[in-house]
Amino acid sequence: MKKFLNDPADVVREALAGVAAAHPELRVDLDQQFVVRADAPRAGKVGLVSGGGSGHEPLHGGFVGPGMLDAACPGEVFTSPVPDQIIAATKAVDGGAGVVHIVKNYTGDVMNFELAAELADDEGIRVETVLVDDDVAVEDSTWTAGRRGTGATLLVEKIAGALAEEGAPLADVAAVGRRVNERSASFAVALTACTTPAAGKPGFDLPADEIEVGVGIHGEPGRSRQQLRPAKEIAALVVEAILTAKPIPSGEPAIVLVNGLGATPLIELYLMFGEISRLLDEAGVGVARSLVGNYVTSLDMAGLSLTVCRVDDELLRLWDAPVRTPGLRWGA
Amino acid sequence: MKKFLNDPADVVREALAGVAAAHPELRVDLDQQFVVRADAPRAGKVGLVSGGGSGHEPLHGGFVGPGMLDAACPGEVFTSPVPDQIIAATKAVDGGAGVVHIVKNYTGDVMNFELAAELADDEGIRVETVLVDDDVAVEDSTWTAGRRGTGATLLVEKIAGALAEEGAPLADVAAVGRRVNERSASFAVALTACTTPAAGKPGFDLPADEIEVGVGIHGEPGRSRQQLRPAKEIAALVVEAILTAKPIPSGEPAIVLVNGLGATPLIELYLMFGEISRLLDEAGVGVARSLVGNYVTSLDMAGLSLTVCRVDDELLRLWDAPVRTPGLRWGA
Repeated sequence: MKKFLNDPADVVREALAGVAAAHPELRVDLDQQFVVRADAPRAGKVGLVSGGGSGHEPLHGGFVGPGMLDAACPGEVFTSPVPDQIIAATKAVDGGAGVVHIVKNYTGDVMNFELAAELADDEGIRVETVLVDDDVAVEDSTWTAGRRGTGATLLVEKIAGALAEEGAPLADVAAVGRRVNERSASFAVALTACTTPAAGKPGFDLPADEIEVGVGIHGEPGRSRQQLRPAKEIAALVVEAILTAKPIPSGEPAIVLVNGLGATPLIELYLMFGEISRLLDEAGVGVARSLVGNYVTSLDMAGLSLTVCRVDDELLRLWDAPVRTPGLRWGA
Repeated sequence: MKKFLNDPADVVREALAGVAAAHPELRVDLDQQFVVRADAPRAGKVGLVSGGGSGHEPLHGGFVGPGMLDAACPGEVFTSPVPDQIIAATKAVDGGAGVVHIVKNYTGDVMNFELAAELADDEGIRVETVLVDDDVAVEDSTWTAGRRGTGATLLVEKIAGALAEEGAPLADVAAVGRRVNERSASFAVALTACTTPAAGKPGFDLPADEIEVGVGIHGEPGRSRQQLRPAKEIAALVVEAILTAKPIPSGEPAIVLVNGLGATPLIELYLMFGEISRLLDEAGVGVARSLVGNYVTSLDMAGLSLTVCRVDDELLRLWDAPVRTPGLRWGA
């Protein structure tokens, strides 16, 4: 294993120390292990908390800031955050208007956020949960009942974050988050497996000429192993999987995220965006907004995911609203 | 080789098509192969043109936009752009106030930008050249006489771009770019070699337990091969190399860039930023601003570079000025 590490057991804590040093506009609680806007809690504003295992950076800690999350709880690498962390973050952002938990659909995450929501309720904090399960590759997976939560998490966090920033009430912020999730579909392809610091070796074996089609962000198996093939054909396969699972009526606009899983160079992501946007265009989907880069990663996995979210005017307006976080920033 | 590619010979052209599709705020000339602000040329504004071999994305095309570059000329992968490209981009951005060429110090780049500057002069366009040679690892290298140009290119483009945006004259814009280069030092460490699409295999052999200390962004040899060691020790080695080459008087402020070379996960970059900022602090360097992420990459190389630029109030002000590009964006 070749990584910039001291003791593999310390990687999350030490990376958080780096986040604290790099981002004075955020507050990092190194004891309870969460990242929070320095101005939290903001009276009257619905708080947004997300979290999950580390190793997917910039998700979630990199999306804390005005217009997006109020706090993020990073678990150990590929491990759910614990209820204590989540309740501490929930309290830290509660400004009296309630808190939305944005939870990717993995069994451990769901359970621990649920426990934290009950604890919050005991303390008089209203919590609404938005479950993200956008990955259309498989039903049920290694750590999931139902579909996995992946790339759409960024869109849910951005759009619900924008509505919360405008002062909308708890139910509305949760509702828009759920609407984004329902309208989103994601699908990923891996060229290589990733290596967690604790394991020290790749999470699965993938022959030199094969790709994992429909892979999960922890290296969970997809739909099939297939021969490596030209970019054009991989793009066709990914676009077809998405439009089959969640068809988009011709002429409808969408936000499109071509997301690197960690080790794929940006030049390849742009090449794939060219192929994908052409195919979407041919299928009658209007690419209203797009994002190309590494946003929801799997450590050093080579590969990419495509997320397509069918939008309306309100969702587009909220997408375009100012955001100021380490990982996503515009208009402010 | 596992990459998202069609024909390896088409990778740059096809990636540029993706850039065009993803960024309607930019104009991509697919014939002449350059990326330019859609509103170029802007009358009375000094134009900024950079470029170099592809494979270092988001450098340079991702840094085109208000507050930074007016145009970028991507050559083929790890290959200098040709004079025709550069002169076409130079003409496209000339608003009558002259054009600054920002050139990384590689023999081919220097020669081709020089030829283009002469052609521009023939056509009555004044060109000033800012040569970037910040990599303190070695004197002379595979494709370089003198020091290589690496991470500081981002700082030169950002700071000179901000001054040009304010309407400063040609000589001042070039002077501030040179000042940034003189005050900057960079040093990189590779954990793995990168693979160009054309070669199809890693550019050099690096045993599983060794690192290349002082590597170049095309995989050029550094100072030495050393045993892989804990992050703390690698951080110490990099910081020492930089402060030895360009000492910073105690208490002076600096901009610090911890830059991933492509395949290193963000969690490791933040961990290293934590180590590096602590060491700089102990050395009396004030980390006034910082940037952690993949900005000047080497395709899929695992590794990182550190760039430290000693700043004054003017440089800080220009660094903080609004910038709106695909790869760097704030305050606008």
